Amino acid sequence: MRSNILVVGSLAYDDVQTPAEHRTDVLGGAASYFAIAARLYAPVRLVGVIGGRSGGSFRWLGRYDYAMNTAETINTDLGVFADWQPRVPESFADSEFVFLANIDPEIQLATLRSVRAPKAVALDTMNYWIDHKRDALLEVISHVDIVSVNESEARQLCDTISVPKAARDILARGPRAVVVKRGEYGSVLFTRSFSFWSPAFPFDEVTDPTGAGDSFAGGFLGHLAETGSVDDRALRRATLHGTVCASFAVERFSVDGIEAATPEDVAARYRLLQDLVRV
Amino acid sequence: MRSNILVVGSLAYDDVQTPAEHRTDVLGGAASYFAIAARLYAPVRLVGVIGGRSGGSFRWLGRYDYAMNTAETINTDLGVFADWQPRVPESFADSEFVFLANIDPEIQLATLRSVRAPKAVALDTMNYWIDHKRDALLEVISHVDIVSVNESEARQLCDTISVPKAARDILARGPRAVVVKRGEYGSVLFTRSFSFWSPAFPFDEVTDPTGAGDSFAGGFLGHLAETGSVDDRALRRATLHGTVCASFAVERFSVDGIEAATPEDVAARYRLLQDLVRV
Repeated sequence: MRSNILVVGSLAYDDVQTPAEHRTDVLGGAASYFAIAARLYAPVRLVGVIGGRSGGSFRWLGRYDYAMNTAETINTDLGVFADWQPRVPESFADSEFVFLANIDPEIQLATLRSVRAPKAVALDTMNYWIDHKRDALLEVISHVDIVSVNESEARQLCDTISVPKAARDILARGPRAVVVKRGEYGSVLFTRSFSFWSPAFPFDEVTDPTGAGDSFAGGFLGHLAETGSVDDRALRRATLHGTVCASFAVERFSVDGIEAATPEDVAARYRLLQDLVRV
Repeated sequence: MRSNILVVGSLAYDDVQTPAEHRTDVLGGAASYFAIAARLYAPVRLVGVIGGRSGGSFRWLGRYDYAMNTAETINTDLGVFADWQPRVPESFADSEFVFLANIDPEIQLATLRSVRAPKAVALDTMNYWIDHKRDALLEVISHVDIVSVNESEARQLCDTISVPKAARDILARGPRAVVVKRGEYGSVLFTRSFSFWSPAFPFDEVTDPTGAGDSFAGGFLGHLAETGSVDDRALRRATLHGTVCASFAVERFSVDGIEAATPEDVAARYRLLQDLVRV
Protein backbone atom coordinates (compact mmCIF):
# COMPACT_ATOMS: atom_id res chain seq x y z
CA MET A 1 0.00 0.00 0.00
CA ARG A 2 1.18 3.50 -0.79
CA SER A 3 2.48 5.56 2.07
CA ASN A 4 1.70 9.25 2.34
CA ILE A 5 4.10 12.15 2.04
CA LEU A 6 4.25 15.41 3.95
CA VAL A 7 6.01 18.45 2.51
CA VAL A 8 6.68 21.65 4.45
CA GLY A 9 8.01 24.56 2.42
CA SER A 10 7.47 27.64 0.32
CA LEU A 11 4.63 28.50 -2.02
CA ALA A 12 5.44 31.45 -4.24
CA TYR A 13 4.79 33.55 -7.26
CA ASP A 14 7.81 33.65 -9.53
CA ASP A 15 9.01 36.07 -12.18
CA VAL A 16 11.45 34.11 -14.31
CA GLN A 17 13.71 35.48 -17.03
CA THR A 18 15.63 33.23 -19.37
CA PRO A 19 17.54 34.24 -22.52
CA ALA A 20 14.51 33.09 -24.54
CA GLU A 21 11.55 34.20 -22.49
CA HIS A 22 10.21 36.18 -19.53
CA ARG A 23 7.21 34.99 -17.50
CA THR A 24 5.62 36.82 -14.60
CA ASP A 25 3.31 35.72 -11.79
CA VAL A 26 3.79 32.02 -12.40
CA LEU A 27 3.37 29.43 -9.67
CA GLY A 28 6.62 28.65 -7.88
CA GLY A 29 7.97 27.68 -4.49
CA ALA A 30 9.72 24.52 -3.36
CA ALA A 31 6.60 22.88 -1.92
CA SER A 32 4.66 23.47 -5.16
CA TYR A 33 7.21 21.70 -7.33
CA PHE A 34 7.71 18.93 -4.79
CA ALA A 35 4.01 18.24 -4.30
CA ILE A 36 3.13 18.26 -8.00
CA ALA A 37 5.94 15.76 -8.65
CA ALA A 38 5.29 13.54 -5.65
CA ARG A 39 1.52 13.23 -6.33
CA LEU A 40 2.47 11.12 -9.35
CA TYR A 41 3.45 8.45 -6.82
CA ALA A 42 1.52 8.80 -3.56
CA PRO A 43 -0.90 11.05 -1.63
CA VAL A 44 0.74 14.34 -0.63
CA ARG A 45 0.07 16.54 2.40
CA LEU A 46 1.28 20.12 2.12
CA VAL A 47 2.02 22.72 4.77
CA GLY A 48 2.79 26.17 3.37
CA VAL A 49 1.68 29.77 3.59
CA ILE A 50 0.07 32.15 1.10
CA GLY A 51 -0.75 35.86 1.29
CA GLY A 52 -3.87 37.29 2.90
CA ARG A 53 -4.76 40.18 5.14
CA SER A 54 -1.44 40.21 6.94
CA GLY A 55 0.68 40.50 3.77
CA GLY A 56 1.38 39.21 0.30
CA SER A 57 2.58 35.83 -0.88
CA PHE A 58 6.29 35.06 -1.23
CA ARG A 59 7.55 36.45 -4.55
CA TRP A 60 10.81 35.61 -6.29
CA LEU A 61 12.32 37.35 -9.32
CA GLY A 62 15.14 35.41 -10.90
CA ARG A 63 17.17 35.35 -14.08
CA TYR A 64 19.13 32.62 -15.87
CA ASP A 65 21.96 33.34 -18.24
CA TYR A 66 22.71 31.50 -21.46
CA ALA A 67 24.30 28.53 -19.66
CA MET A 68 21.09 27.99 -17.64
CA ASN A 69 23.00 26.61 -14.68
CA THR A 70 22.54 28.97 -11.73
CA ALA A 71 19.78 31.49 -11.14
CA GLU A 72 20.63 35.07 -10.31
CA THR A 73 18.14 36.32 -7.74
CA ILE A 74 17.16 39.85 -8.72
CA ASN A 75 14.58 40.38 -6.02
CA THR A 76 12.92 38.51 -3.18
CA ASP A 77 9.78 39.70 -1.44
CA LEU A 78 9.21 37.27 1.43
CA GLY A 79 5.79 38.66 2.38
CA VAL A 80 3.98 36.39 4.83
CA PHE A 81 6.74 33.81 4.41
CA ALA A 82 9.13 36.00 6.43
CA ASP A 83 7.67 35.26 9.85
CA TRP A 84 6.07 31.95 9.04
CA GLN A 85 6.18 29.27 11.72
CA PRO A 86 4.69 26.21 10.08
CA ARG A 87 2.31 24.23 12.22
CA VAL A 88 1.87 20.62 11.24
CA PRO A 89 -1.77 19.72 12.00
CA GLU A 90 -2.37 16.74 14.27
CA SER A 91 -3.95 14.92 11.34
CA PHE A 92 -0.57 15.06 9.54
CA ALA A 93 1.45 13.88 12.55
CA ASP A 94 1.31 10.30 11.31
CA SER A 95 2.99 11.15 7.98
CA GLU A 96 5.28 8.38 6.79
CA PHE A 97 7.60 10.22 4.41
CA VAL A 98 8.55 13.84 5.04
CA PHE A 99 10.26 16.46 2.90
CA LEU A 100 11.66 19.51 4.67
CA ALA A 101 12.08 21.90 1.77
CA ASN A 102 14.64 24.70 1.83
CA ILE A 103 13.72 26.89 4.81
CA ASP A 104 15.46 28.05 8.00
CA PRO A 105 16.98 24.89 9.56
CA GLU A 106 15.61 25.83 12.99
CA ILE A 107 12.13 25.72 11.49
CA GLN A 108 12.95 22.46 9.75
CA LEU A 109 13.90 20.92 13.10
CA ALA A 110 10.78 22.22 14.87
CA THR A 111 8.64 20.87 12.05
CA LEU A 112 10.31 17.50 12.20
CA ARG A 113 9.49 17.20 15.90
CA SER A 114 5.80 17.42 15.15
CA VAL A 115 5.82 14.24 13.05
CA ARG A 116 5.62 11.15 15.25
CA ALA A 117 7.41 8.25 13.54
CA PRO A 118 8.26 8.92 9.91
CA LYS A 119 9.77 6.10 7.85
CA ALA A 120 12.11 8.56 6.16
CA VAL A 121 12.76 12.29 6.27
CA ALA A 122 14.57 14.18 3.52
CA LEU A 123 15.85 17.72 3.63
CA ASP A 124 16.97 20.32 1.13
CA THR A 125 18.86 23.50 1.95
CA MET A 126 20.77 26.33 0.26
CA ASN A 127 23.97 28.33 0.49
CA TYR A 128 22.30 31.04 2.60
CA TRP A 129 21.70 28.65 5.51
CA ILE A 130 25.16 27.11 5.16
CA ASP A 131 26.59 30.61 5.55
CA HIS A 132 24.28 31.96 8.24
CA LYS A 133 22.89 29.03 10.25
CA ARG A 134 25.50 26.38 9.87
CA ASP A 135 25.20 24.89 13.37
CA ALA A 136 21.41 24.65 13.19
CA LEU A 137 21.70 23.08 9.75
CA LEU A 138 24.20 20.47 10.96
CA GLU A 139 21.86 19.73 13.88
CA VAL A 140 18.84 19.06 11.67
CA ILE A 141 21.01 17.07 9.23
CA SER A 142 21.85 14.72 12.11
CA HIS A 143 18.11 14.00 12.50
CA VAL A 144 17.16 13.23 8.90
CA ASP A 145 17.58 10.16 6.71
CA ILE A 146 18.26 11.74 3.34
CA VAL A 147 20.06 14.98 2.46
CA SER A 148 19.46 16.44 -0.99
CA VAL A 149 21.93 19.12 -2.03
CA ASN A 150 23.52 20.37 -5.17
CA GLU A 151 27.21 20.00 -5.83
CA SER A 152 28.25 23.51 -4.79
CA GLU A 153 26.24 23.26 -1.57
CA ALA A 154 27.87 19.93 -0.70
CA ARG A 155 31.32 21.43 -1.24
CA GLN A 156 30.50 24.56 0.74
CA LEU A 157 28.92 22.68 3.61
CA CYS A 158 31.90 20.35 4.01
CA ASP A 159 34.63 22.76 2.94
CA THR A 160 36.14 20.46 0.33
CA ILE A 161 36.26 20.41 -3.46
CA SER A 162 35.86 16.62 -3.40
CA VAL A 163 32.21 15.63 -3.70
CA PRO A 164 32.79 12.06 -2.44
CA LYS A 165 34.56 13.45 0.64
CA ALA A 166 31.71 15.89 1.24
CA ALA A 167 29.19 13.08 0.97
CA ARG A 168 31.10 10.95 3.47
CA ASP A 169 31.28 13.89 5.83
CA ILE A 170 27.50 14.33 5.68
CA LEU A 171 26.88 10.59 6.10
CA ALA A 172 29.10 10.60 9.18
CA ARG A 173 26.64 13.04 10.78
CA GLY A 174 23.81 10.53 10.64
CA PRO A 175 21.86 10.45 7.37
CA ARG A 176 21.77 7.13 5.54
CA ALA A 177 21.78 8.71 2.08
CA VAL A 178 23.05 11.86 0.41
CA VAL A 179 21.95 12.85 -3.07
CA VAL A 180 24.23 15.32 -4.83
CA LYS A 181 22.60 17.01 -7.82
CA ARG A 182 24.82 18.16 -10.66
CA GLY A 183 22.46 19.71 -13.19
CA GLU A 184 23.13 18.55 -16.74
CA TYR A 185 25.69 16.07 -15.38
CA GLY A 186 23.09 14.07 -13.48
CA SER A 187 23.23 13.16 -9.82
CA VAL A 188 25.00 10.81 -7.45
CA LEU A 189 23.51 8.94 -4.52
CA PHE A 190 25.92 8.15 -1.70
CA THR A 191 25.30 5.73 1.15
CA ARG A 192 27.76 4.08 3.54
CA SER A 193 27.83 0.91 1.45
CA PHE A 194 27.48 2.01 -2.18
CA SER A 195 27.22 4.89 -4.64
CA PHE A 196 24.81 5.16 -7.53
CA TRP A 197 25.14 7.45 -10.54
CA SER A 198 22.21 8.73 -12.51
CA PRO A 199 22.65 10.46 -15.86
CA ALA A 200 20.65 13.63 -16.46
CA PHE A 201 17.83 13.44 -18.93
CA PRO A 202 19.52 14.27 -22.25
CA PHE A 203 17.88 17.51 -23.34
CA ASP A 204 19.32 19.71 -26.04
CA GLU A 205 18.31 22.69 -23.93
CA VAL A 206 16.22 23.33 -20.86
CA THR A 207 13.44 25.91 -20.78
CA ASP A 208 13.37 26.90 -17.11
CA PRO A 209 15.61 25.25 -14.49
CA THR A 210 13.51 26.61 -11.59
CA GLY A 211 12.22 23.87 -9.34
CA ALA A 212 14.47 21.13 -10.71
CA GLY A 213 15.81 20.21 -7.28
CA ASP A 214 12.40 20.18 -5.58
CA SER A 215 10.87 18.14 -8.40
CA PHE A 216 13.82 15.78 -8.05
CA ALA A 217 13.02 15.40 -4.35
CA GLY A 218 9.36 14.82 -5.25
CA GLY A 219 10.19 11.95 -7.56
CA PHE A 220 12.73 10.57 -5.11
CA LEU A 221 10.51 10.52 -2.02
CA GLY A 222 7.54 9.73 -4.23
CA HIS A 223 9.10 6.45 -5.30
CA LEU A 224 10.02 5.56 -1.71
CA ALA A 225 6.44 6.26 -0.58
CA GLU A 226 4.96 4.35 -3.49
CA THR A 227 6.97 1.26 -2.63
CA GLY A 228 6.95 1.89 1.12
CA SER A 229 10.61 0.95 1.15
CA VAL A 230 13.91 2.68 1.86
CA ASP A 231 16.19 -0.25 1.08
CA ASP A 232 19.20 0.05 -1.24
CA ARG A 233 17.26 -0.93 -4.35
CA ALA A 234 14.52 1.59 -3.59
CA LEU A 235 17.12 4.33 -3.07
CA ARG A 236 18.77 3.61 -6.43
CA ARG A 237 15.44 3.62 -8.24
CA ALA A 238 14.34 6.72 -6.35
CA THR A 239 17.39 8.55 -7.74
CA LEU A 240 16.26 7.76 -11.29
CA HIS A 241 12.70 8.86 -10.46
CA GLY A 242 14.11 12.10 -9.10
CA THR A 243 15.90 12.63 -12.39
CA VAL A 244 12.74 11.91 -14.34
CA CYS A 245 10.66 14.43 -12.36
CA ALA A 246 13.38 17.07 -12.64
CA SER A 247 13.33 16.53 -16.41
CA PHE A 248 9.62 17.35 -16.59
CA ALA A 249 10.13 20.45 -14.46
CA VAL A 250 12.88 21.99 -16.58
CA GLU A 251 11.38 21.41 -19.99
CA ARG A 252 8.60 23.98 -19.56
CA PHE A 253 8.14 27.17 -17.56
CA SER A 254 7.03 27.09 -13.92
CA VAL A 255 5.26 23.90 -12.86
CA ASP A 256 3.72 23.42 -16.32
CA GLY A 257 5.95 20.50 -17.29
CA ILE A 258 5.66 18.50 -14.09
CA GLU A 259 1.93 19.27 -13.88
CA ALA A 260 1.34 17.81 -17.35
CA ALA A 261 3.32 14.61 -16.67
CA THR A 262 1.50 11.29 -16.28
CA PRO A 263 2.65 8.00 -14.73
CA GLU A 264 3.07 6.69 -18.29
CA ASP A 265 5.39 9.61 -19.09
CA VAL A 266 7.37 8.78 -15.94
CA ALA A 267 7.70 5.14 -16.96
CA ALA A 268 8.87 6.06 -20.47
CA ARG A 269 11.58 8.43 -19.22
CA TYR A 270 12.70 5.97 -16.57
CA ARG A 271 13.28 3.39 -19.33
CA LEU A 272 15.18 5.95 -21.39
CA LEU A 273 17.51 6.68 -18.46
CA GLN A 274 18.20 2.99 -18.11
CA ASP A 275 18.94 2.69 -21.82
CA LEU A 276 21.56 5.43 -21.48
CA VAL A 277 23.74 3.24 -19.26
CA ARG A 278 22.99 -0.23 -20.64
CA VAL A 279 26.01 -1.95 -22.13
CA MET B 1 42.01 -12.57 -33.12
CA ARG B 2 43.19 -9.26 -31.82
CA SER B 3 43.60 -6.50 -34.34
CA ASN B 4 46.53 -4.11 -34.18
CA ILE B 5 46.47 -0.41 -33.43
CA LEU B 6 48.49 2.44 -34.91
CA VAL B 7 48.96 5.71 -33.03
CA VAL B 8 50.53 8.82 -34.52
CA GLY B 9 51.23 11.65 -32.11
CA SER B 10 53.49 13.41 -29.67
CA LEU B 11 56.14 12.00 -27.36
CA ALA B 12 57.27 14.49 -24.77
CA TYR B 13 58.98 15.33 -21.52
CA ASP B 14 56.58 17.03 -19.15
CA ASP B 15 57.02 19.30 -16.18
CA VAL B 16 53.82 19.08 -14.20
CA GLN B 17 52.80 21.20 -11.24
CA THR B 18 49.79 20.39 -9.09
CA PRO B 19 48.81 21.96 -5.77
CA ALA B 20 50.36 18.94 -4.05
CA GLU B 21 53.45 18.18 -6.09
CA HIS B 22 55.88 19.24 -8.84
CA ARG B 23 57.53 16.70 -11.13
CA THR B 24 60.03 17.46 -13.84
CA ASP B 25 61.27 15.51 -16.86
CA VAL B 26 58.55 12.89 -16.68
CA LEU B 27 57.36 10.97 -19.73
CA GLY B 28 54.43 12.63 -21.46
CA GLY B 29 52.94 13.16 -24.88
CA ALA B 30 49.64 11.96 -26.28
CA ALA B 31 51.10 8.93 -28.06
CA SER B 32 52.83 7.77 -24.87
CA TYR B 33 49.64 7.73 -22.82
CA PHE B 34 47.62 6.22 -25.65
CA ALA B 35 50.08 3.43 -26.39
CA ILE B 36 50.61 2.45 -22.77
CA ALA B 37 46.84 2.20 -22.30
CA ALA B 38 46.08 0.45 -25.59
CA ARG B 39 48.77 -2.22 -25.12
CA LEU B 40 46.60 -3.62 -22.34
CA TYR B 41 44.26 -4.77 -25.13
CA ALA B 42 46.13 -5.29 -28.40
CA PRO B 43 49.51 -4.85 -30.14
CA VAL B 44 50.32 -1.16 -30.66
CA ARG B 45 52.39 0.47 -33.42
CA LEU B 46 53.66 3.95 -32.65
CA VAL B 47 54.84 6.75 -34.92
CA GLY B 48 56.34 9.72 -33.07
CA VAL B 49 59.47 11.83 -32.91
CA ILE B 50 62.12 12.34 -30.23
CA GLY B 51 65.06 14.69 -29.99
CA GLY B 52 68.47 14.02 -31.51
CA ARG B 53 71.10 15.95 -33.45
CA SER B 54 68.60 18.29 -35.05
CA GLY B 55 67.02 19.43 -31.79
CA GLY B 56 65.46 18.47 -28.51
CA SER B 57 62.36 16.49 -27.69
CA PHE B 58 59.00 18.18 -27.28
CA ARG B 59 58.75 19.62 -23.76
CA TRP B 60 55.61 20.81 -21.99
CA LEU B 61 55.40 22.71 -18.73
CA GLY B 62 51.91 22.81 -17.25
CA ARG B 63 50.15 23.63 -14.03
CA TYR B 64 46.84 22.56 -12.48
CA ASP B 65 44.98 24.59 -9.93
CA TYR B 66 43.11 23.24 -6.94
CA ALA B 67 40.08 22.21 -9.03
CA MET B 68 42.34 20.01 -11.23
CA ASN B 69 40.14 20.48 -14.26
CA THR B 70 42.10 22.38 -16.91
CA ALA B 71 45.83 22.67 -17.31
CA GLU B 72 47.46 26.05 -17.65
CA THR B 73 50.30 25.77 -20.14
CA ILE B 74 53.23 27.73 -18.78
CA ASN B 75 55.70 26.86 -21.49
CA THR B 76 55.92 24.74 -24.61
CA ASP B 77 59.18 23.89 -26.35
CA LEU B 78 58.23 22.03 -29.52
CA GLY B 79 61.81 21.08 -30.42
CA VAL B 80 61.91 18.50 -33.21
CA PHE B 81 58.11 18.18 -33.00
CA ALA B 82 57.71 21.62 -34.63
CA ASP B 83 58.53 20.56 -38.18
CA TRP B 84 57.67 16.91 -37.86
CA GLN B 85 56.03 15.27 -40.82
CA PRO B 86 55.20 11.77 -39.65
CA ARG B 87 55.92 9.01 -42.13
CA VAL B 88 53.95 5.83 -41.61
CA PRO B 89 56.24 2.95 -42.63
CA GLU B 90 54.94 0.58 -45.29
CA SER B 91 54.88 -2.18 -42.67
CA PHE B 92 52.26 -0.17 -40.72
CA ALA B 93 50.08 0.56 -43.77
CA ASP B 94 47.88 -2.44 -42.99
CA SER B 95 46.97 -1.14 -39.50
CA GLU B 96 43.40 -1.97 -38.56
CA PHE B 97 42.65 0.59 -35.85
CA VAL B 98 44.21 4.05 -35.99
CA PHE B 99 44.42 6.88 -33.48
CA LEU B 100 45.32 10.30 -34.80
CA ALA B 101 46.37 12.06 -31.60
CA ASN B 102 46.15 15.82 -31.21
CA ILE B 103 48.36 17.29 -33.94
CA ASP B 104 47.88 19.67 -36.88
CA PRO B 105 44.78 18.41 -38.73
CA GLU B 106 46.59 18.70 -42.08
CA ILE B 107 49.16 16.24 -40.77
CA GLN B 108 46.40 14.02 -39.41
CA LEU B 109 44.85 13.86 -42.88
CA ALA B 110 48.15 13.13 -44.61
CA THR B 111 48.84 10.38 -42.07
CA LEU B 112 45.43 8.86 -42.55
CA ARG B 113 46.06 8.58 -46.31
CA SER B 114 49.03 6.32 -45.70
CA VAL B 115 46.93 3.64 -44.02
CA ARG B 116 45.24 1.42 -46.59
CA ALA B 117 41.97 0.07 -45.18
CA PRO B 118 41.57 0.68 -41.45
CA LYS B 119 38.53 -0.77 -39.69
CA ALA B 120 38.16 2.37 -37.60
CA VAL B 121 40.01 5.64 -37.23
CA ALA B 122 39.67 7.89 -34.18
CA LEU B 123 40.82 11.46 -33.85
CA ASP B 124 41.52 13.83 -30.98
CA THR B 125 42.09 17.57 -31.29
CA MET B 126 42.34 20.73 -29.19
CA ASN B 127 41.10 24.31 -29.03
CA TYR B 128 44.20 25.62 -30.86
CA TRP B 129 43.29 23.75 -34.06
CA ILE B 130 39.61 24.68 -33.75
CA ASP B 131 40.72 28.32 -33.65
CA HIS B 132 43.48 28.25 -36.25
CA LYS B 133 42.81 25.38 -38.66
CA ARG B 134 39.08 24.93 -38.51
CA ASP B 135 38.57 24.03 -42.17
CA ALA B 136 41.34 21.45 -42.18
CA LEU B 137 39.97 19.99 -38.96
CA LEU B 138 36.45 19.69 -40.37
CA GLU B 139 37.94 18.03 -43.44
CA VAL B 140 39.77 15.34 -41.47
CA ILE B 141 36.73 14.86 -39.22
CA SER B 142 34.73 13.95 -42.31
CA HIS B 143 37.20 11.10 -42.96
CA VAL B 144 37.29 9.47 -39.54
CA ASP B 145 34.94 7.09 -37.72
CA ILE B 146 35.27 8.32 -34.14
CA VAL B 147 35.84 11.83 -32.80
CA SER B 148 37.09 12.15 -29.22
CA VAL B 149 36.79 15.64 -27.74
CA ASN B 150 36.21 17.20 -24.40
CA GLU B 151 33.07 19.15 -23.65
CA SER B 152 34.50 22.62 -24.20
CA GLU B 153 36.05 21.57 -27.50
CA ALA B 154 32.73 20.14 -28.71
CA ARG B 155 30.98 23.39 -27.83
CA GLN B 156 33.66 25.53 -29.43
CA LEU B 157 33.83 23.45 -32.61
CA CYS B 158 30.07 23.56 -33.16
CA ASP B 159 29.41 27.00 -31.69
CA THR B 160 26.69 25.86 -29.31
CA ILE B 161 26.41 25.44 -25.56
CA SER B 162 24.35 22.27 -26.09
CA VAL B 163 26.55 19.19 -26.08
CA PRO B 164 23.91 16.95 -27.75
CA LYS B 165 23.54 19.52 -30.54
CA ALA B 166 27.30 19.69 -30.96
CA ALA B 167 27.49 15.91 -31.16
CA ARG B 168 24.78 15.77 -33.83
CA ASP B 169 26.59 18.44 -35.79
CA ILE B 170 29.81 16.38 -35.75
CA LEU B 171 27.96 13.17 -36.64
CA ALA B 172 26.38 14.97 -39.60
CA ARG B 173 29.88 15.49 -41.01
CA GLY B 174 30.52 11.77 -41.31
CA PRO B 175 31.82 10.08 -38.14
CA ARG B 176 29.75 7.24 -36.75
CA ALA B 177 30.56 8.04 -33.13
CA VAL B 178 31.49 11.05 -31.02
CA VAL B 179 32.81 10.69 -27.49
CA VAL B 180 32.50 13.80 -25.35
CA LYS B 181 34.69 13.70 -22.25
CA ARG B 182 33.57 15.64 -19.19
CA GLY B 183 36.27 15.05 -16.58
CA GLU B 184 34.88 14.12 -13.18
CA TYR B 185 31.38 13.98 -14.70
CA GLY B 186 32.21 11.07 -16.95
CA SER B 187 31.70 10.89 -20.70
CA VAL B 188 28.96 10.48 -23.26
CA LEU B 189 29.07 8.47 -26.47
CA PHE B 190 26.84 9.73 -29.27
CA THR B 191 25.93 7.83 -32.43
CA ARG B 192 23.08 8.40 -34.90
CA SER B 193 20.94 5.74 -33.23
CA PHE B 194 21.76 5.92 -29.52
CA SER B 195 23.64 7.66 -26.74
CA PHE B 196 25.57 5.98 -23.97
CA TRP B 197 26.53 7.60 -20.72
CA SER B 198 29.54 6.56 -18.63
CA PRO B 199 30.20 7.73 -15.07
CA ALA B 200 33.71 8.81 -14.18
CA PHE B 201 35.72 6.61 -11.89
CA PRO B 202 34.80 7.92 -8.41
CA PHE B 203 38.04 9.24 -7.00
CA ASP B 204 38.17 11.50 -3.99
CA GLU B 205 40.91 13.41 -5.75
CA VAL B 206 43.08 12.98 -8.82
CA THR B 207 46.85 13.22 -8.69
CA ASP B 208 47.70 14.38 -12.23
CA PRO B 209 45.04 14.84 -14.92
CA THR B 210 47.64 14.94 -17.72
CA GLY B 211 47.01 12.29 -20.36
CA ALA B 212 43.49 11.42 -19.22
CA GLY B 213 42.02 11.97 -22.68
CA ASP B 214 44.71 10.03 -24.51
CA SER B 215 44.51 7.16 -22.04
CA PHE B 216 40.74 7.22 -22.54
CA ALA B 217 41.29 6.90 -26.29
CA GLY B 218 43.73 4.05 -25.65
CA GLY B 219 41.19 2.07 -23.67
CA PHE B 220 38.44 2.90 -26.15
CA LEU B 221 40.29 1.86 -29.32
CA GLY B 222 42.01 -0.90 -27.37
CA HIS B 223 38.68 -2.56 -26.64
CA LEU B 224 37.57 -2.22 -30.27
CA ALA B 225 40.84 -3.77 -31.46
CA GLU B 226 40.68 -6.56 -28.88
CA THR B 227 37.20 -7.56 -30.03
CA GLY B 228 37.78 -6.62 -33.68
CA SER B 229 34.33 -5.06 -33.66
CA VAL B 230 32.90 -1.58 -34.00
CA ASP B 231 29.25 -2.48 -33.48
CA ASP B 232 27.00 -0.67 -31.02
CA ARG B 233 27.76 -3.00 -28.15
CA ALA B 234 31.50 -2.70 -28.70
CA LEU B 235 31.23 1.11 -28.77
CA ARG B 236 29.33 1.18 -25.45
CA ARG B 237 31.84 -1.12 -23.79
CA ALA B 238 34.73 0.81 -25.33
CA THR B 239 33.45 3.95 -23.59
CA LEU B 240 33.69 2.20 -20.22
CA HIS B 241 37.17 0.91 -21.06
CA GLY B 242 38.16 4.47 -21.95
CA THR B 243 36.96 5.59 -18.54
CA VAL B 244 38.89 2.80 -16.84
CA CYS B 245 42.17 3.68 -18.58
CA ALA B 246 41.71 7.39 -17.86
CA SER B 247 41.25 6.49 -14.18
CA PHE B 248 44.63 4.75 -14.07
CA ALA B 249 46.27 7.72 -15.78
CA VAL B 250 45.02 10.36 -13.35
CA GLU B 251 45.67 8.56 -10.11
CA ARG B 252 49.46 8.83 -10.37
CA PHE B 253 51.91 11.25 -11.98
CA SER B 254 52.87 10.96 -15.63
CA VAL B 255 52.29 7.52 -17.16
CA ASP B 256 53.04 5.75 -13.86
CA GLY B 257 49.43 4.79 -13.16
CA ILE B 258 48.53 3.48 -16.58
CA GLU B 259 51.92 1.75 -16.87
CA ALA B 260 51.33 -0.18 -13.64
CA ALA B 261 47.81 -1.31 -14.62
CA THR B 262 47.16 -4.95 -15.47
CA PRO B 263 44.29 -6.59 -17.37
CA GLU B 264 42.97 -7.77 -13.98
CA ASP B 265 42.95 -4.17 -12.73
CA VAL B 266 41.05 -3.18 -15.86
CA ALA B 267 38.44 -5.88 -15.29
CA ALA B 268 37.96 -4.88 -11.64
CA ARG B 269 37.41 -1.21 -12.47
CA TYR B 270 35.11 -2.07 -15.37
CA ARG B 271 32.91 -4.02 -12.93
CA LEU B 272 32.95 -1.13 -10.48
CA LEU B 273 31.73 1.28 -13.19
CA GLN B 274 28.88 -1.08 -13.98
CA ASP B 275 27.96 -1.30 -10.29
CA LEU B 276 27.69 2.50 -10.17
CA VAL B 277 24.72 2.48 -12.54
CA ARG B 278 23.06 -0.82 -11.67
CA VAL B 279 19.56 -0.48 -10.25
